[in-house]
Amino acid sequence: MRTPLPDYLAEVLDTCRDDESGTLADYIPELADADPSTLALTVCTIDGILYTVGDGDAEVTIQSISKPFAYALALADHGLDAVLEKVGVEPSGEAFNEISLESDTGRPLNPMINAGAITVHSLLDDERVRTGFAAFAGRALTVDERVMNSEIETADRNRAIAYMLRNHGIIDVDPPEAVAGYTRQCSYLVTVADLAAMVTTLANAGVQPHTGERVVPRWVARQALSVMTTCGMYDAAGDWFTTVGIPAKSGVSGGLVGAVPGKGGAAVLSPRLDAHGNSVRGIKVFERLSRDMGMHLLDSPPPARPLAHTTAMVDGDGDGNQDTAVFELQGAVDFPGVERLLRDLAEQPPSNSTLVLDLGHVSEVRDVGRRMLLEGVRRLSLDGHHIILIDPDDLLEGPEGPIEVGDGGDAEVVRAR
Amino acid sequence: MRTPLPDYLAEVLDTCRDDESGTLADYIPELADADPSTLALTVCTIDGILYTVGDGDAEVTIQSISKPFAYALALADHGLDAVLEKVGVEPSGEAFNEISLESDTGRPLNPMINAGAITVHSLLDDERVRTGFAAFAGRALTVDERVMNSEIETADRNRAIAYMLRNHGIIDVDPPEAVAGYTRQCSYLVTVADLAAMVTTLANAGVQPHTGERVVPRWVARQALSVMTTCGMYDAAGDWFTTVGIPAKSGVSGGLVGAVPGKGGAAVLSPRLDAHGNSVRGIKVFERLSRDMGMHLLDSPPPARPLAHTTAMVDGDGDGNQDTAVFELQGAVDFPGVERLLRDLAEQPPSNSTLVLDLGHVSEVRDVGRRMLLEGVRRLSLDGHHIILIDPDDLLEGPEGPIEVGDGGDAEVVRAR
Amino acid sequence: MRTPLPDYLAEVLDTCRDDESGTLADYIPELADADPSTLALTVCTIDGILYTVGDGDAEVTIQSISKPFAYALALADHGLDAVLEKVGVEPSGEAFNEISLESDTGRPLNPMINAGAITVHSLLDDERVRTGFAAFAGRALTVDERVMNSEIETADRNRAIAYMLRNHGIIDVDPPEAVAGYTRQCSYLVTVADLAAMVTTLANAGVQPHTGERVVPRWVARQALSVMTTCGMYDAAGDWFTTVGIPAKSGVSGGLVGAVPGKGGAAVLSPRLDAHGNSVRGIKVFERLSRDMGMHLLDSPPPARPLAHTTAMVDGDGDGNQDTAVFELQGAVDFPGVERLLRDLAEQPPSNSTLVLDLGHVSEVRDVGRRMLLEGVRRLSLDGHHIILIDPDDLLEGPEGPIEVGDGGDAEVVRAR
Amino acid sequence: MRTPLPDYLAEVLDTCRDDESGTLADYIPELADADPSTLALTVCTIDGILYTVGDGDAEVTIQSISKPFAYALALADHGLDAVLEKVGVEPSGEAFNEISLESDTGRPLNPMINAGAITVHSLLDDERVRTGFAAFAGRALTVDERVMNSEIETADRNRAIAYMLRNHGIIDVDPPEAVAGYTRQCSYLVTVADLAAMVTTLANAGVQPHTGERVVPRWVARQALSVMTTCGMYDAAGDWFTTVGIPAKSGVSGGLVGAVPGKGGAAVLSPRLDAHGNSVRGIKVFERLSRDMGMHLLDSPPPARPLAHTTAMVDGDGDGNQDTAVFELQGAVDFPGVERLLRDLAEQPPSNSTLVLDLGHVSEVRDVGRRMLLEGVRRLSLDGHHIILIDPDDLLEGPEGPIEVGDGGDAEVVRAR
Repeated sequence: MRTPLPDYLAEVLDTCRDDESGTLADYIPELADADPSTLALTVCTIDGILYTVGDGDAEVTIQSISKPFAYALALADHGLDAVLEKVGVEPSGEAFNEISLESDTGRPLNPMINAGAITVHSLLDDERVRTGFAAFAGRALTVDERVMNSEIETADRNRAIAYMLRNHGIIDVDPPEAVAGYTRQCSYLVTVADLAAMVTTLANAGVQPHTGERVVPRWVARQALSVMTTCGMYDAAGDWFTTVGIPAKSGVSGGLVGAVPGKGGAAVLSPRLDAHGNSVRGIKVFERLSRDMGMHLLDSPPPARPLAHTTAMVDGDGDGNQDTAVFELQGAVDFPGVERLLRDLAEQPPSNSTLVLDLGHVSEVRDVGRRMLLEGVRRLSLDGHHIILIDPDDLLEGPEGPIEVGDGGDAEVVRAR
Repeated sequence: MRTPLPDYLAEVLDTCRDDESGTLADYIPELADADPSTLALTVCTIDGILYTVGDGDAEVTIQSISKPFAYALALADHGLDAVLEKVGVEPSGEAFNEISLESDTGRPLNPMINAGAITVHSLLDDERVRTGFAAFAGRALTVDERVMNSEIETADRNRAIAYMLRNHGIIDVDPPEAVAGYTRQCSYLVTVADLAAMVTTLANAGVQPHTGERVVPRWVARQALSVMTTCGMYDAAGDWFTTVGIPAKSGVSGGLVGAVPGKGGAAVLSPRLDAHGNSVRGIKVFERLSRDMGMHLLDSPPPARPLAHTTAMVDGDGDGNQDTAVFELQGAVDFPGVERLLRDLAEQPPSNSTLVLDLGHVSEVRDVGRRMLLEGVRRLSLDGHHIILIDPDDLLEGPEGPIEVGDGGDAEVVRAR
Repeated sequence: MRTPLPDYLAEVLDTCRDDESGTLADYIPELADADPSTLALTVCTIDGILYTVGDGDAEVTIQSISKPFAYALALADHGLDAVLEKVGVEPSGEAFNEISLESDTGRPLNPMINAGAITVHSLLDDERVRTGFAAFAGRALTVDERVMNSEIETADRNRAIAYMLRNHGIIDVDPPEAVAGYTRQCSYLVTVADLAAMVTTLANAGVQPHTGERVVPRWVARQALSVMTTCGMYDAAGDWFTTVGIPAKSGVSGGLVGAVPGKGGAAVLSPRLDAHGNSVRGIKVFERLSRDMGMHLLDSPPPARPLAHTTAMVDGDGDGNQDTAVFELQGAVDFPGVERLLRDLAEQPPSNSTLVLDLGHVSEVRDVGRRMLLEGVRRLSLDGHHIILIDPDDLLEGPEGPIEVGDGGDAEVVRAR
Repeated sequence: MRTPLPDYLAEVLDTCRDDESGTLADYIPELADADPSTLALTVCTIDGILYTVGDGDAEVTIQSISKPFAYALALADHGLDAVLEKVGVEPSGEAFNEISLESDTGRPLNPMINAGAITVHSLLDDERVRTGFAAFAGRALTVDERVMNSEIETADRNRAIAYMLRNHGIIDVDPPEAVAGYTRQCSYLVTVADLAAMVTTLANAGVQPHTGERVVPRWVARQALSVMTTCGMYDAAGDWFTTVGIPAKSGVSGGLVGAVPGKGGAAVLSPRLDAHGNSVRGIKVFERLSRDMGMHLLDSPPPARPLAHTTAMVDGDGDGNQDTAVFELQGAVDFPGVERLLRDLAEQPPSNSTLVLDLGHVSEVRDVGRRMLLEGVRRLSLDGHHIILIDPDDLLEGPEGPIEVGDGGDAEVVRAR
């Protein structure tokens, strides 16, 4: 058997291939000379498996897609507050190369417009970008010096922006050098698979899915994805979010990346751009993927199997009395599930002296569910029940360490049924 | 045992109660006379249970929180394209009462600013709003005529907007009447529990969680929540989304609602507003809830129990050969899980003639997972395996009806293990 | 002999007639139906003689050309400060129908944009406009009710503006009524001669040149002309002022009026408009007139005959000594002339005991010149000279009454040489 | 006798001296360290006499007042069209350091904002500025290198503007060099008398009033003054023009210059600035001067002595018949005067065979008046009259050379009465 995913992805590409609308970026000859027919798609699973179809060997400069990754590196290095002081997180409603500074402070509205990206770059250095991007991609990347030099030559608008930023005290480095560094950041060569691996690192809470390296902290990945959600597609952010519904970022060389947190990421390469500067076929591919796979963040999940329990009354201590109730939990230990379980227990308090909660079949434990469950256990314990928690997979163990039932409560934890 | 949720919610309220910053809306006396100390919170579960703490009896006019619900009704009545023709979905980066029309078409940028909301209202009528809001809330709502009349009297800015809209051909009704109708829409009296029930209807894909009534189609709920995500908090949308991370809407009378699709919704009432017009304590409460409960849409879920399988070799037909392999699946039948399963099967093809897939312990089935699994089953069947699917809960049954394995494939489905 | 002016004006019209570029205003059928070939020019002298060539019988609605006249009436009725409180005097750099309100106060930037003109109209009433316009034109004007009603029907943008104005507290009347009144003001029917007479009233310091009626005070005429200078041609004000260089106002029905203070005024009628909404051939005609006649306010006057004097030494008292110096002044008694005269007298003090200043041949007396001359006389008198002023035309008599030489000075004034 | 002007000017300064409102420019230490009490005024007559009162020795850097003079030099060197292609002439309605480029072309709106001034400077070179400014001032000026270097150091905003300009193809020089050159242009040290001499050169149609050197052509002076009229006082242009009513330019070091074409110029120095960046006491002084001297361009001149004639019937050829009419003209030979004269002659045609027009007492001849008069002469000649023109001062001689009466006409010109 061959896994069906590549066939599906190839079919998706095929249905989008005929769309030849849009135009190449042409402000430098190197971009204008790109092959407009290039089309490639990579889906990267959360555990780092890459499925690539189309022109997987094509390399382009990363351009604006570098922005969220540089932002993530800056957040990781300087902390949230220090970065927020320099760059906001609000959508600008404007095109990518508008200056879009806050009128009072001169702070760029967000890190996805050039003003914000130049500011973010000024918080890094070339070496940090090089090693950071390599960590995101899972391999060393090289700079296309020819593209970089051509871009630097025509980067007057960005230099204007950089001088305006220094005028407002947002950056304090030499503006042309800041632009040169930022342009270098934009000139790393990537394949569609590199892009997919990079964005999946954000989807995987900051851990590169293939190498397993933690590239940025969890909160940084969430912050970068949040800003991609509201600002990643320029002045088409609302249109993208209603139809595709995931954090994304596009670049002028035709790349487009999207992430589904905890699930995976994808990237498309197709150089013809629409009026907003987004890849025409890239958008089409993502719309198809989102529709087929239910990727939209706001799709209410289909009727899931909620946290359920089967109860058995047993004679736990062999005294002839069925004084023990065994609750075998199934499904997700999350807010809705635990809320419902505790509601049931509150409405119909068990009479058994011993209560066994068997977590051997639960599928997932959310922090809020874990904490609510333990609070429930504490209360049942205070009501006089003897509680036994069966947790063979240590699911109840929280980020802070072993289980704590809380004031006055008590529970016996066993790992084997 | 008492369920711990109310205690937790009360504690959240208590930690926010002391913040007396912000000011009351004062453009009409009725709002300026509100009790600034009012503080209430309701959490509504996806199955319609309401947990209310604080001033649950306080009633306020719904104001701008009416916008997403009216938008949803208009979408349901007229379809997506007809509504998009009149109102866009892009964040404006501006305050709520800016005119914010597209410069070429005059189309309001989105339905959460007044221009868009007046346009949306012009697609409805008073009776439709009345019955629609009642369906969202699960009970009939009444209009505060005194507030409405006071607002209508001072609604010159909105009348200006409405005339500008008719000037651009966006609306064709009498502008002052459109404003009067819109103001009536904003004047429905609601409690914090009403607000929570309404937003949870959107979180529940359009079905009122308590009454079970489908108020709007699934796609409409998603569209309304999408626009709330990018435009619901005015020019603080980016700040809200990075910190709280869920679709939300605020109103000038101090209400604030948020939805977690498939999980539930919540509302806070506290009339003091910050500079953006959002409830100060409302934001605090949601920040706390989001942090505690992991509500942020882009929080990668914690290490979930992935789709796993235990394999057992059995002599299914009693011929003495272990010619049957039983795969007991656990966890979520979603894209990542099925992709991994099929990858394993592709890499290490089973030699057994009969393959049993037992879905009796899976927690959740996503459409894409179901379809990938069936395609895998088809391919295994074509490879010559006899496939038996154990699906006691009809989880594999899709929205279109009974299981179809697809061209050339075959599988036996049994409901009992 | 026929006076050559009509021939000259006819020739000017002829050279501009062939230009058929531009388009008719078409937002109401009545304007779209105008005869695009209409072309008429009137020059009005400062003493009220009208020279009209071309389609002198054509009548059009006055439209925006009403703005400076209504502004003048409002100034006359309410005073400068009261009007400035409501409407500014700054160019907006924007098209005529932009809202252009000051961001903090909501005050319209100037009275030549619609927002300002509606505000100005709200300070008047229909009857005041009717009688005021009649006084400017020198004859009663009538309203084209058909055009007026058609405009009122489509005046949604203006109604939007009016509501925005009331929202900011700039007007307090009913907005649709304010717009209706303003539209009535714009619907007075005028010929090109009416327009010329009206603007010449402003050029003539507020006095209708033919009837001799003082329609508005001198300061009002200057204020209206000042605002026409910087704001009269919308966003083409700078282009107009550099090339034509006089206060002007254009209207959407193809009228264009210009004033040369103290000299006269002119009006052109030609309905095809350029992109700024100004009459294409109207501008051409004025450019030609300005070039030919040296109308540009900043054309340094050509070498004028400066204030000059011939000095004669006479034996005034018959004692045999030429103890009297007679200065026969010629040219303008203005700042430059008197400054030079006094400088000469300071540098080469006359030794004669009696000084005669003969003003019988001066061409013009400016107030500053008169006052400087009298101050010089006072000083010469204090130096011991006996001064005789010959002033047959009472030119030295100031606005405040008879000549006053000032503290300590003395002079004998005679009217005959 | 002492000429009274200095006393008057000193009194004007005294009445304004007490106003200590406003603040020093402080973006560089050198400006912040200026003596706020500095107050000086120079009035320069059209023939180059300078009256200075107050701190006449104080030197400041010329700053933005350099803009109209550099603009004039660029116009003189490159012609109107070449300069208009790079810089517009429309008021921006914005502060001086706004970028204010036309959205489509990137052309700065006018040469009085920084973007326009940097563009204008790019059309010159340092040496041209040095010699040009010296010609305007009538003496060599030196650069304050300390101020210049300090300004260059902090000129990030201007460098941003310059890069934006090169991005739009408006300038093609190195942006930081363009800014350095422009800053040098702004750093010339001037006294209040220098400023007055410079602006009076523009008032004098381009001829330095003291040296007599023609610095720029007449049309250039008019163009520079025109742009000063609409754009010289930034976003207070309208307020200035309604109250003072002359072309002007202010600078951040507290200078303020104004011109009355054909009459003279003035400059004030007082470093405290209002919110628009204009000298507080500078404006006060000019308001007083304008009021006292009737400088406002739109003040209708006071009842001037119009072109008048006395007629005498004489027996010119001694044949006993009074067949000769002598018209002795007085006043200005301008449009209104000649129009009236010719109208009289048309209405009451003289019966005498010989007509003598004596121009010996006219005060001023405008080109349009000269041409109209000659056309009248031609027509009278064609009517059969013998015409004798007495023109002792060659006033009728036009710019193109000797008198030409035109087709078919004839006249005898004599220089002595």
